[in-house]
Amino acid sequence: MTFAAQITVRFNHVDAAGIVFYPRYYEMLNEVVERWFDEGLGTSFRDLHLVQKVGVPARNIAVDFLKASRLGDVLTFELQVQKVGRSSLTLKIDCWCDGAQRLSADLVLVCVSLSPFATASIPAALRERMMAFTGPS
Amino acid sequence: MTFAAQITVRFNHVDAAGIVFYPRYYEMLNEVVERWFDEGLGTSFRDLHLVQKVGVPARNIAVDFLKASRLGDVLTFELQVQKVGRSSLTLKIDCWCDGAQRLSADLVLVCVSLSPFATASIPAALRERMMAFTGPS
Amino acid sequence: MTFAAQITVRFNHVDAAGIVFYPRYYEMLNEVVERWFDEGLGTSFRDLHLVQKVGVPARNIAVDFLKASRLGDVLTFELQVQKVGRSSLTLKIDCWCDGAQRLSADLVLVCVSLSPFATASIPAALRERMMAFTGPS
Amino acid sequence: MTFAAQITVRFNHVDAAGIVFYPRYYEMLNEVVERWFDEGLGTSFRDLHLVQKVGVPARNIAVDFLKASRLGDVLTFELQVQKVGRSSLTLKIDCWCDGAQRLSADLVLVCVSLSPFATASIPAALRERMMAFTGPS
Repeated sequence: MTFAAQITVRFNHVDAAGIVFYPRYYEMLNEVVERWFDEGLGTSFRDLHLVQKVGVPARNIAVDFLKASRLGDVLTFELQVQKVGRSSLTLKIDCWCDGAQRLSADLVLVCVSLSPFATASIPAALRERMMAFTGPS
Repeated sequence: MTFAAQITVRFNHVDAAGIVFYPRYYEMLNEVVERWFDEGLGTSFRDLHLVQKVGVPARNIAVDFLKASRLGDVLTFELQVQKVGRSSLTLKIDCWCDGAQRLSADLVLVCVSLSPFATASIPAALRERMMAFTGPS
Repeated sequence: MTFAAQITVRFNHVDAAGIVFYPRYYEMLNEVVERWFDEGLGTSFRDLHLVQKVGVPARNIAVDFLKASRLGDVLTFELQVQKVGRSSLTLKIDCWCDGAQRLSADLVLVCVSLSPFATASIPAALRERMMAFTGPS
Repeated sequence: MTFAAQITVRFNHVDAAGIVFYPRYYEMLNEVVERWFDEGLGTSFRDLHLVQKVGVPARNIAVDFLKASRLGDVLTFELQVQKVGRSSLTLKIDCWCDGAQRLSADLVLVCVSLSPFATASIPAALRERMMAFTGPS
């Protein structure tokens, strides 16, 4: 199963060259993961961070930027799970617009307890729901 | 030769978990590259973009996040050139604080003319000055 | 007539205190204006900036922050036109959540031509459509 | 006494029109206040938020944008205290570049305890140091 989310390129995303400034793509990637938790996994980031006191910071992220995006483009992001480890989560997120791929991202996130700040196991209920989004590796 | 720049972790960099939100690191990486052009290469981003009508968007970026950074941390970024191609530029940027590495980034930037938007050769004068920052690959 | 838009408070909006960091509210205000152009006035920011070469930077903005917003809050912004001058546009934007007002903003935007950068008259067709959103001053 | 801080306009501050995008000015205003605490008042934001568990969110902010700023401009911000109340703090911040004023900002910040989130008195030691920056109202 794939989780899909659309984000429109807004004025605050583009730079002096009129294209998306690459740090803004990472804000979009984080928003896609956040909406996946909210809408796909049934555990909101609010609940995760404020109630369960758990966070999912990045361990590593590799992105290929394939084609520039411009003001008003409606981007479709597709998220698939590559691997769910004890505390780490490997995701692939592709971004498309008008039939062409804009970027391809590989992310490894890691589950941490927030106080004290330390690596933690992914909660069992969450892990199971994550597995439903496993795609081809 | 290595180009070094310091950036203090400010309130706008940190998230609800009190650590640097990863999209902010990419704003920092871009600032390091920008200051390298200004201070290390002698061609400011203003001159590059507004006068020469040339930009350097990212083609791919891979980052390992090694240790969380917090409000007030003074981060030292070290930039070295790995390779200068005809139109592409491969950089390595490491970030340190208090003797420990915070992140390691590999960036491939590509030189483009802005109007029309198309891949361009790195200007010869700039290429030569870039070579001075070549480090071990 | 009032233009309304909803924005969910995401992880990238909140600070170390867990509430919306105030600069992020201004990104939201700009997004509301941008969506008003796109959806309410029928002239997208892309068309305005890239085709018509016109921008609408701020001349002054006053905001009262009435109540803190938190991760996951769904904010409703309501925009009304107070006054349409020759080149300036006065807007009022209120933000609500759960029946309580979060902020009240008064904005004066000014129409500029982008090259060369100079104050310009608001295009007649746009002015007429703006008048439909006039509310009580 | 006036607290002064310089901020260079970087690539991440400017928009598709090549001028500072106004939400970025509010990030700069917050940075000026943050550096005033660090360098002028001797209490860092890190210490304030993480140790003393006190924050200073905005109650209202009014800004006049007088002249556009562009990539590479070195902006000088000057902060003066207008009034120190029991829990509120009124500041005036002017921004200059090349002999011309870029913006004028009036800010009312309010002291809050972070857990639970509630209005609090400004700590006495801090209040006294703030008074040294009182300027003409």
